[in-house]
Amino acid sequence: MHKLLTPGPVPIPEFVKAALAQPVIHHRTPEFTDFYKEFLADLRYFFQTEQGVCTCIGSGTYGVEMAIYSMFAPGDEILVTSHGKFSKRWAAYAHHLGIRVHTLEMPWGKSPSRNQILEKLEQAPQCKGVVLTHSETSTGAILDLEEIAFAVKRKNPDILLVVDGITSVGALPYYHDAWGIDCSVIASQKALMNPAGLVGFAFSEQAKSRLRETYKGDFQNLRNHLLAAESFSSAFTAPVQLLFGVQAALSYFRKETLPSVWNRVHQTAVYFRREIGEMGGSIFPDEPSDSLTSFTLPISQFSISEIKAILDKKYGLILSGGQGDLEGKILRVSHMGLWEKKDMEEIVIALRELLSQ
Amino acid sequence: MHKLLTPGPVPIPEFVKAALAQPVIHHRTPEFTDFYKEFLADLRYFFQTEQGVCTCIGSGTYGVEMAIYSMFAPGDEILVTSHGKFSKRWAAYAHHLGIRVHTLEMPWGKSPSRNQILEKLEQAPQCKGVVLTHSETSTGAILDLEEIAFAVKRKNPDILLVVDGITSVGALPYYHDAWGIDCSVIASQKALMNPAGLVGFAFSEQAKSRLRETYKGDFQNLRNHLLAAESFSSAFTAPVQLLFGVQAALSYFRKETLPSVWNRVHQTAVYFRREIGEMGGSIFPDEPSDSLTSFTLPISQFSISEIKAILDKKYGLILSGGQGDLEGKILRVSHMGLWEKKDMEEIVIALRELLSQ
Repeated sequence: MHKLLTPGPVPIPEFVKAALAQPVIHHRTPEFTDFYKEFLADLRYFFQTEQGVCTCIGSGTYGVEMAIYSMFAPGDEILVTSHGKFSKRWAAYAHHLGIRVHTLEMPWGKSPSRNQILEKLEQAPQCKGVVLTHSETSTGAILDLEEIAFAVKRKNPDILLVVDGITSVGALPYYHDAWGIDCSVIASQKALMNPAGLVGFAFSEQAKSRLRETYKGDFQNLRNHLLAAESFSSAFTAPVQLLFGVQAALSYFRKETLPSVWNRVHQTAVYFRREIGEMGGSIFPDEPSDSLTSFTLPISQFSISEIKAILDKKYGLILSGGQGDLEGKILRVSHMGLWEKKDMEEIVIALRELLSQ
Repeated sequence: MHKLLTPGPVPIPEFVKAALAQPVIHHRTPEFTDFYKEFLADLRYFFQTEQGVCTCIGSGTYGVEMAIYSMFAPGDEILVTSHGKFSKRWAAYAHHLGIRVHTLEMPWGKSPSRNQILEKLEQAPQCKGVVLTHSETSTGAILDLEEIAFAVKRKNPDILLVVDGITSVGALPYYHDAWGIDCSVIASQKALMNPAGLVGFAFSEQAKSRLRETYKGDFQNLRNHLLAAESFSSAFTAPVQLLFGVQAALSYFRKETLPSVWNRVHQTAVYFRREIGEMGGSIFPDEPSDSLTSFTLPISQFSISEIKAILDKKYGLILSGGQGDLEGKILRVSHMGLWEKKDMEEIVIALRELLSQ
């Protein structure tokens, strides 16, 4: 059996598979309402929030696009940090919507700091929002969300903070309320260990009051999804099976408790980074995220794609390479999901064997 | 075990459940490419097309929104027929996008005719597209798509025909190529008997050449999804599990053959409509679709919601009521999925018992 160690999708545990296979219930029934009520309570725990949450059918990309679309209008000014494939995409999307985008651009692998963001906001005092990618999946870089959020809100509490938490919530410490985030976005195929297809959102009261009003049938407008969720219903056809699967994962997090999961992820990441260092490799980002490790190896006899192929065929270990500008330059390993230190050891042993060839 | 007889979602057969439970494969691998190549070939059969097809994460509503967004630009003029909850929504969405919408509005339960559409196009000769809802799920009405498509294309072959085939493709005769449709939209939780979460599209060459160019990361732009599908890849994270499930359904249609499935659906619908007529009920739409039956009953002792509750609790039969303006006025039964005449008989027996009380 191969081990899928990519930073999303992650393997689906058996208990999630069992939940996914439950009989369909219709989304316009009291049964669904009862189910979704409990589901949303668990989702609040996952985000560490007491405020509004909702879900809808979508991919991670679409989730962030929806958030930007729903919270800002053409002509609004916002600040977007761009330091990898995904954060760059959010800037492009906002621009596409007619939003006036101030981009804090930096080399891939770097993370924007509080001061850089504050400086950029000085130059663009009309900004109504800041879009941040907490853990940049393409580079493995983390940013100090707590510190940045605190500084931005202190400067101007009216600025809406939109956070791509796709590769962070459920794997890394994340406190939607305590950190003052206005809109957090997640996707089902990452820490939630489910099939791709569901996106989840948490809002602040301020964000909720500032969601655009369009019309009731507008799928892309999160206002419709959030208002429906307040009465435990779904604005459109609900992906019932996937909600069952995600519910199983949310229950797991409740039972294990988030701090204990965060700690396991942290331990596996620390162990893996240290081993990569010891074998002469380099961690690619300056500030590595614990949810995945992007790294290079001191190896000249094989290319990155050859290493990936050997790990897959000889060791049954499926890793990711780089994306965009990083293709062929880095390898990426996920620490999201149920991985433990022993799984990382397997990769380390395989890499050491490769290096000694 | 309850029977979920709603016109979507429909029950998920065991062979689809087994496919949904297969291990995750990453969507950036040769395995996925091989799988998706075969998948897309089967999807072409399903649409009866030799032209471009693609899929993406989404609900039916979002699928139609994407199609309108991708094929028309603000300022374009289009004609939308509005004769139920969903067709009305497509008009609202197009309007929301800044498209100049000419709406052919008619009472819910009626179906637009070829002549009405041609007349409306006479009045709006600049129309670049016509959006049609083949089978209106909220009313159970069908429109004569073949005749309308032929007449519109004869009048002006440059007009793009966008068809909501969500409650029709896979249940009713549908020929994307032969009828000259430019963009057909389907969703996984209807005739495909899968969880909600996947939308599928078929295009004509003309439609493909006229898809808007925006930028590569724009999830809503079908151009990105279609171009990726041409090399059997997915523009964004693919919903791999759901694709496995849909593949199992597509194989079923291949094996059973579409005409044989259409015939079964037709027979169950004809039988059910006749029985409703014989017990003094009325079929709600003038031109009923075979994929679902919307009807009223000659009953005064129970309200529609009471009838629904009795059917559910006493007989284990889950039907839908009306939506929007039709709430509390009609009942709806699906003929999509694996239902046979004997399943319809069960409903008929239950309804007759209710009527005799």
